[in-house]
Amino acid sequence: MARRAAAGLLRRLVPLAASDTQPRRGMYPAQYGATNRYFSIFYWIQGQQHPLYGCRTNVETDDSQQSAQMNFKVQKRSFSSSAAHIQRNPTYSVLNSDDVSYFKSILGESGVVQDEDRVAVANVDWMGKYKGASQLLLLPKSSNEVSKILSYCNSRRLAVVPQGGNTGLVGGSVPVYDEVNGILTCEAGCVLENLSSFVENKGFIMPLDLGAKGSCHIGGNISTNAGGLRFIRYGSLHGNVLGLEVVLADGTVLDMLTTLRKDNTGYDLKHLFIGSEGSLGVVTKIAILTPAKLPSTNVAFLSCNDYISCQKLLLAARRSLGEILSAFEFMDRHCINLAMKYLEGVHNPLPVSPYNFYVLIETTGSDESYDKAKLEAFLLRSMEDGLVTDGVIAQDISQASNFWRIREGISEASVKVGAVYKYDLSIPVEKLYDIVEETRSRVGDMGDVLGYGHLGDGNLHLNIVSTKYSDEMLAQIEPFVYEWTSKQRGSISAEHGLGLMKAEKIHYSKSSEAVQLMASIKKLFDPNSILNPYKVRRYV
Amino acid sequence: MARRAAAGLLRRLVPLAASDTQPRRGMYPAQYGATNRYFSIFYWIQGQQHPLYGCRTNVETDDSQQSAQMNFKVQKRSFSSSAAHIQRNPTYSVLNSDDVSYFKSILGESGVVQDEDRVAVANVDWMGKYKGASQLLLLPKSSNEVSKILSYCNSRRLAVVPQGGNTGLVGGSVPVYDEVNGILTCEAGCVLENLSSFVENKGFIMPLDLGAKGSCHIGGNISTNAGGLRFIRYGSLHGNVLGLEVVLADGTVLDMLTTLRKDNTGYDLKHLFIGSEGSLGVVTKIAILTPAKLPSTNVAFLSCNDYISCQKLLLAARRSLGEILSAFEFMDRHCINLAMKYLEGVHNPLPVSPYNFYVLIETTGSDESYDKAKLEAFLLRSMEDGLVTDGVIAQDISQASNFWRIREGISEASVKVGAVYKYDLSIPVEKLYDIVEETRSRVGDMGDVLGYGHLGDGNLHLNIVSTKYSDEMLAQIEPFVYEWTSKQRGSISAEHGLGLMKAEKIHYSKSSEAVQLMASIKKLFDPNSILNPYKVRRYV
Ligand SMILES: Cc1cc2nc3c(=O)[nH]c(=O)nc-3n(C[C@H](O)[C@H](O)[C@H](O)COP(=O)(O)OP(=O)(O)OC[C@H]3O[C@@H](n4cnc5c(N)ncnc54)[C@H](O)[C@@H]3O)c2cc1C
Ligand SMILES: Cc1cc2nc3c(=O)[nH]c(=O)nc-3n(C[C@H](O)[C@H](O)[C@H](O)COP(=O)(O)OP(=O)(O)OC[C@H]3O[C@@H](n4cnc5c(N)ncnc54)[C@H](O)[C@@H]3O)c2cc1C
Repeated sequence: MARRAAAGLLRRLVPLAASDTQPRRGMYPAQYGATNRYFSIFYWIQGQQHPLYGCRTNVETDDSQQSAQMNFKVQKRSFSSSAAHIQRNPTYSVLNSDDVSYFKSILGESGVVQDEDRVAVANVDWMGKYKGASQLLLLPKSSNEVSKILSYCNSRRLAVVPQGGNTGLVGGSVPVYDEVNGILTCEAGCVLENLSSFVENKGFIMPLDLGAKGSCHIGGNISTNAGGLRFIRYGSLHGNVLGLEVVLADGTVLDMLTTLRKDNTGYDLKHLFIGSEGSLGVVTKIAILTPAKLPSTNVAFLSCNDYISCQKLLLAARRSLGEILSAFEFMDRHCINLAMKYLEGVHNPLPVSPYNFYVLIETTGSDESYDKAKLEAFLLRSMEDGLVTDGVIAQDISQASNFWRIREGISEASVKVGAVYKYDLSIPVEKLYDIVEETRSRVGDMGDVLGYGHLGDGNLHLNIVSTKYSDEMLAQIEPFVYEWTSKQRGSISAEHGLGLMKAEKIHYSKSSEAVQLMASIKKLFDPNSILNPYKVRRYV
Repeated sequence: MARRAAAGLLRRLVPLAASDTQPRRGMYPAQYGATNRYFSIFYWIQGQQHPLYGCRTNVETDDSQQSAQMNFKVQKRSFSSSAAHIQRNPTYSVLNSDDVSYFKSILGESGVVQDEDRVAVANVDWMGKYKGASQLLLLPKSSNEVSKILSYCNSRRLAVVPQGGNTGLVGGSVPVYDEVNGILTCEAGCVLENLSSFVENKGFIMPLDLGAKGSCHIGGNISTNAGGLRFIRYGSLHGNVLGLEVVLADGTVLDMLTTLRKDNTGYDLKHLFIGSEGSLGVVTKIAILTPAKLPSTNVAFLSCNDYISCQKLLLAARRSLGEILSAFEFMDRHCINLAMKYLEGVHNPLPVSPYNFYVLIETTGSDESYDKAKLEAFLLRSMEDGLVTDGVIAQDISQASNFWRIREGISEASVKVGAVYKYDLSIPVEKLYDIVEETRSRVGDMGDVLGYGHLGDGNLHLNIVSTKYSDEMLAQIEPFVYEWTSKQRGSISAEHGLGLMKAEKIHYSKSSEAVQLMASIKKLFDPNSILNPYKVRRYV
């Protein structure tokens, strides 16, 4: 039996017909619309001021104030935990024309955007879920300008929202590269993809890679502690970021921009800013480790009959592929069916249907033929052991892209159904799929439940899709998902942060002592709470 | 020419005569004396109270108070930056018999050590450089006991020094291992080497390894942010530690003991405790990532004519050995000469003298013959390119141990000369050897200057050895070494922390804004400054 399966696999190792229109992995410009911009999913609410930076700053105006005085509900298009009814904090000042003049004196006319259309673009998130009503956008070009803006806003108590994700001013920031030590130093406004190309030209890679790379800023990545596709291999930004420059709420420029791999002098403060979602300071510069670029990449697409096989396969891959394993992604049958239905030009490389789970394994190493032989041997053994039922190894870049496109396209496909309830959970691998099944039985035929994600990191993306939003459905999902995750000591946000959507849900993942300490730290760094108000402030 | 050199290398690839008495890498129990214990080098001063935990707690008594009222000079055996003239802080209380009774009520008689001999052992550091005068040692067995002790000391304003490095109570702590996710959870008092054996039995390794592993505690490693020999491959503890449980100064048990790889809910507070040298809280439990153990290790020992060749070799090794490179250590001729003179049973595998630099390269991978072939090919190329003048690859474990013994024995050998002035610096690789040469010319024939270290991490160990201590010599070294390092934006402590020795030197590596923020954080976490007083408190 196993032998036969192995033979089946071997047959499949010959090249498939190359699919011609596959986009490169991680490159779906069309998806981002004409402006090729991206805003973090959770951060925009109607009637709230949305100030500053990444390369833009929104400061509240009288107009937004009018509406901000009311109670606002996050727009109904927000399909999960609604961060409803945010009351404007009356201690914040209201922006006036003197403020605008002051900003112009620092940034010039071009750095202060009041034009309604341009501001409107900044007022909505990438998914169109959250919408802001700010009328002012500031575009500082240097740490010094950021410092002046913050110092002013702090003294005036004008609330500020740092923002990345726009390529506007990036041309101005010149990355510096240290090839001997493999360290990149750059400004926060650099777009991740540009940095990737920059270091790849020198034979290195960025330690992180994600679908949004074409528009997200490295400053935004740091502030959200982005994980992404290289996490299993190169680990977290806490391990890879060497230094930061951050402007604090009072305008102090905090220079922690070391490019040293090791530095044990005093507390390592930079870690507080990694993942703090712009609530403790504005990241302006970054020094980051870049691993050597390895020439050989292989991608396999496999099927498994059950979830336990996926788990065992992960363990076996860790042991057998060891130092060359660079991705281990999984998706269930529901994901594949959806991807095939909604993604253009994508095909399932395996015969459809009978399999319940699919796994994408990538290896990256320095020896093409050796790596491939190793991957093949591993797959054969896995088939013999009954872990894998079928599988193919990509024979060229276009096949590899197709495999990745399936995995990365699930999110895109699910949006096309109509309504998506999205959860990004960390759960111990053994239990990770239980929640998918339980949710499926709760939801019944109200919707389709998808389970996929970075299995190698214990990171599940749980998406519930339906043709339209319904309170009845939401009641089946929340607080169930949060409570279930909490019971397993999981995290209700593996990658995406708390933002607005989950600001009040922190207690599901963090102890009250920890939350209290966070509040004290927030108060220490930003006593007037001018940075990213309502989000962080609601839990700390 | 290059061809001839390459032929020379190849000849040397045949097995050398196995040396029979080589200890295993990192295993020199004799070195630690009969008690097999280790205290951090920088932490003990005469007349200072030395309280608590790791698994022991020293609380100040009336006796120590007598002396603590005076001004103390660190003993003269402290051969570098003397942390002299520490004035006892009069706001601390003096330990009385009620306190001792209270501690006994929590810990029982056996948990409260007043016996002079046992306390004396805890009152001196491993190097015998710093000496304390505490009369009380507490041995808590659980987080709950630590919490009670700290809460009491905080309310009484009794100063406390957390301490690891003693195997006393370790038997009590049972590590828990999650094989699917490769995550170890254990108590802070576990000895690193025991944890290593524990996970190696399951096919994994600890992400850190250091010479002191036979006696240092994982809690001590976390608190000093230890680097060590696997750093180049597995990176910093900030990337590998997943969760911590910490008892704060007021006794609050802060549960951050997640075992998740990814968790972006709120600020990642655990990083504040990694490397904070016990000044913000007592680490009681740890969850840490453990990489898969790979079966094949190869070690090469090479010589280079000049430092620029060492640098180029590092760059070439990063590119060619890529994912299997696991150590890149260098040492200069002075180190080798000293090691040959003072270390028993160690021999130089290369013909002596003409070479100025020696490099040890280790690879770790999953395929013995492939890895070795790869290393050989790399060395051949390096000889052809003129980077390497001679070299050998270990043919068995005993040869590999000999190579490592040379590198790891330098510190031991240097102590035997008489006086050692030790500096542990992070400096950009290009400049790293300049300071050795400059120091050498400053010191002249007053002493021998050794340069060695983890070149792959930009970490230089600069040791100046002499037969006896002299102020004249010190004046040539300090503040020169600190100023020079600071000018290169280096770190005056790559691995060892600031401790007492360098508490007042923090400004050489950190901006005043950062130091001020550290002070605020210290105040927030430990308002009565009962944890590790005089050390951290002197810079924050
Ligand atoms: C298609 C797609 C794929 C994605 N894939 C992944 C993935 O695989 N893994 C993952 O972890 N995430 C993923 N994300 C979400 C991820 O968090 C973001 O892509 C990215 O890290 C945010 O960068 P940005 O510049 O767009 O930040 P923004 O959206 O502009 O801001 C995000 C947050 O950071 C703050 N911020 C931004 N810049 C700064 C700054 N300079 N200083 C201080 N605060 C700042 C903002 O105030 C906000 O709170 C994905 C998103 C999309 C749309
Ligand atoms: C032979 C030798 C080789 C070494 N090699 C290296 C090396 O390669 N790399 C490197 O980085 N270092 C090295 N070191 C130094 C290194 O810092 C220590 O070996 C180790 O990390 C300290 O552990 P310990 O348990 O002995 O801590 P201790 O010496 O007991 O304490 C060190 C510090 O941590 C605090 N502390 C201890 N336990 C706790 C706790 N549970 N909670 C809070 N605070 C605590 C103490 O108060 C003190 O400030 C070496 C030392 C020796 C003697």
